[in-house]
Amino acid sequence: MASTRSWFSIPKGSHFSLANIPFGIISTASSTSPRVAVAIGDHALDLEAFAASNGFSALSTIQPHQAVFSTPNLNAFAALGRPIHSVVRKYIQSVFTADTPYPDVLKNNVTLQKQALIPLKDTKAHLPFRIGDYTDFFAGRNHAYNCGVIFRGPTNALQPNYNHLPVGYHGRASSVVPSGTPIRRPNGQILLDPTAEKKIPTFSPCKKLDIELELGAFVCGSNPQGEPIPIDKAEDSLFGVVLMNDWSARDIQAWEYVPLGPFNAKNFGTTISTWVVLADALEPFKTKGLENEAEVLPYLKEKAEKTVYDINLEIDVKTSSGNNTTISKVNARNLMWSFPQMLAHHTINGCPFQPGDLLGSGTISGETAAEYGSFLEQSQNGKETIALNGGEKRTFLEDGDEITIRGICGADEEALVGFGECVGRIEPALKLSFN
Amino acid sequence: MASTRSWFSIPKGSHFSLANIPFGIISTASSTSPRVAVAIGDHALDLEAFAASNGFSALSTIQPHQAVFSTPNLNAFAALGRPIHSVVRKYIQSVFTADTPYPDVLKNNVTLQKQALIPLKDTKAHLPFRIGDYTDFFAGRNHAYNCGVIFRGPTNALQPNYNHLPVGYHGRASSVVPSGTPIRRPNGQILLDPTAEKKIPTFSPCKKLDIELELGAFVCGSNPQGEPIPIDKAEDSLFGVVLMNDWSARDIQAWEYVPLGPFNAKNFGTTISTWVVLADALEPFKTKGLENEAEVLPYLKEKAEKTVYDINLEIDVKTSSGNNTTISKVNARNLMWSFPQMLAHHTINGCPFQPGDLLGSGTISGETAAEYGSFLEQSQNGKETIALNGGEKRTFLEDGDEITIRGICGADEEALVGFGECVGRIEPALKLSFN
Repeated sequence: MASTRSWFSIPKGSHFSLANIPFGIISTASSTSPRVAVAIGDHALDLEAFAASNGFSALSTIQPHQAVFSTPNLNAFAALGRPIHSVVRKYIQSVFTADTPYPDVLKNNVTLQKQALIPLKDTKAHLPFRIGDYTDFFAGRNHAYNCGVIFRGPTNALQPNYNHLPVGYHGRASSVVPSGTPIRRPNGQILLDPTAEKKIPTFSPCKKLDIELELGAFVCGSNPQGEPIPIDKAEDSLFGVVLMNDWSARDIQAWEYVPLGPFNAKNFGTTISTWVVLADALEPFKTKGLENEAEVLPYLKEKAEKTVYDINLEIDVKTSSGNNTTISKVNARNLMWSFPQMLAHHTINGCPFQPGDLLGSGTISGETAAEYGSFLEQSQNGKETIALNGGEKRTFLEDGDEITIRGICGADEEALVGFGECVGRIEPALKLSFN
Repeated sequence: MASTRSWFSIPKGSHFSLANIPFGIISTASSTSPRVAVAIGDHALDLEAFAASNGFSALSTIQPHQAVFSTPNLNAFAALGRPIHSVVRKYIQSVFTADTPYPDVLKNNVTLQKQALIPLKDTKAHLPFRIGDYTDFFAGRNHAYNCGVIFRGPTNALQPNYNHLPVGYHGRASSVVPSGTPIRRPNGQILLDPTAEKKIPTFSPCKKLDIELELGAFVCGSNPQGEPIPIDKAEDSLFGVVLMNDWSARDIQAWEYVPLGPFNAKNFGTTISTWVVLADALEPFKTKGLENEAEVLPYLKEKAEKTVYDINLEIDVKTSSGNNTTISKVNARNLMWSFPQMLAHHTINGCPFQPGDLLGSGTISGETAAEYGSFLEQSQNGKETIALNGGEKRTFLEDGDEITIRGICGADEEALVGFGECVGRIEPALKLSFN
């Protein structure tokens, strides 16, 4: 059954209800230039076509900027700033609403409907941004604690800095790919026997290939080098949020990461969902994150109580034999640091940001195994098996496994704010030979 | 006295002799669009103007690609590949040589000389590349050892992985700035008493602001995600080399870096010299790097013996009172991993590269204090003072200090291959207030 809130047919349960209006980049077989679109129900509204046919005639604010919809990424649109994103989203909502004040724009304009409303299944969704820099944080306190217990025991599970600053590392922007891109199992150096006195690595395909369930936030603000973005302005610098799978090679990481952090264990691929849910659309779903027992320094103090998002996330594993299992269900409130805190910390030293920069939240895990956001935690670093449907088992990922992450805000089936899917399937490692 | 090898006046001792021909991006007061140039003696040859006036008429290879010289960075020129860089450099050398076979191109063309040869002092040099991703390595074994001794003592100075892989971390591309850009002292969290049982950080301007003397290599090759660049092809993927000062906040780093590596201690600024010395120009100065006592895995084995560069580097400190002191002289052969090894390792897992990506070598230090490439090593983490001319002293950088890094290959004053200067001056930290 379709929503009654729009004149346009939006299936009930759609991630892309009238309450959402996420932005992305599409192309089609007949029009291969990537361009800006929004998702609505099972369709994309091609904003290049919409703008070209005077779709924005009633919105004078955007008219001088309409060229941004013909660009192959959202960088230029994002750079216009949150007030503009806000009015554009509201205008599109008003165009689709049942009693639209602008019926001639689209509701009664069958020509433009045919031209600009494209079934999502007929579109190719691209990476939404040209990503300048990508930083991955570690703000999921349960995940940080669980990893600490696995590697160091419960006494020193969290490092002394954990409650005082959002710990993070620079990721590899070039390795971020849109949902659906296959991920090749990486080769690299691993230490087969970490307890051996003489530590000699082996060259091997990764044997502990893992996922990390995260959120990604795209930045729309910028700051000159040397000038921080204060915490009370940080939210204005957030464009929107995507789902993220930060594929991780645990055995490569264990050997390489001292003293400079994760590197080849991470930079072979990070998958994001392709429709960016605007910060505005997430506003009603703000909630309180995990309690921080420490008093944070003033530059990290937020006035609001609700600073993270109430998003129901889940992870499916589909094996090559076709069995599908939901291995984790966890809420995104399981973060101890918010995106504004991450941005305020990242820039407190004057580190410069540009529209299109990406922040990863870090793995989101709850307190029980059914809520863990990585195989590392679910299998206790390979010590326990994860039971899948059809009698299959896993400790880490096998070739052919397909991971799908989903996320939804809200319970009203006619007003969901969802993220679509973040999908990646594991291809076998390259067989390399050396002379 | 000027070189006799060119009809054009190139001062003796110039970094930019006929043997060099480094590439960069310039603008001028009368022509503010950044464009491609080469440096020759005290002048820049504006390649946009040169190309527009048929300067490349005798070089058919480049003619279909001349638009690359009108772009504001070297990315498009670099993407043409090393064989093209090679012929363009050789052609420009032949145009400037005393007995040039193309006298009508420039030697006898006073109009074009006036148009395209601009005194360097009248140009502004820009960042040479739009940097997609920047990775900083740790290939200076003496530096890695010295830091290990300072923080962990001589027994475990090098981590077990050090001799097996080029350890590195992802840097922040947005923070890379051209020589001459002021660097503001960062604010951040520091732990005043690391021995205290309760570890509570203080918000403060960095008190241990440092330099790192490095080389940077710009990449011209690319690889699809999932496919490595083999070591014997890695050299073809190197465009050229610059000097680099990887400014470092040691106290911020000490507190933040576990377990994910350096972050705000690094991303407030990294300075590079603006003229990129082509890999071809450095070919005659290849030499053997530091011995690796370990047997490296086949994917890191190089056929050649000489894989690093014989570059004489030096660091000057000029204080705000005007005293200038050369605090370090060290040769770039003090690297244990070569740029091809770094690239082969970085991509062995399929991490994708694009033209314009930047690799930092890590700090280059010799074996004695006079050859150390950081204040951390020279002052033994603040325990000893570094004597400057005029009776001044330092442990780390003070506000107003200006650091100049220089690098030169060769001894023939008429055929030097130099890098120009990599300069940055420290501005006081921002005074921030919080409500």
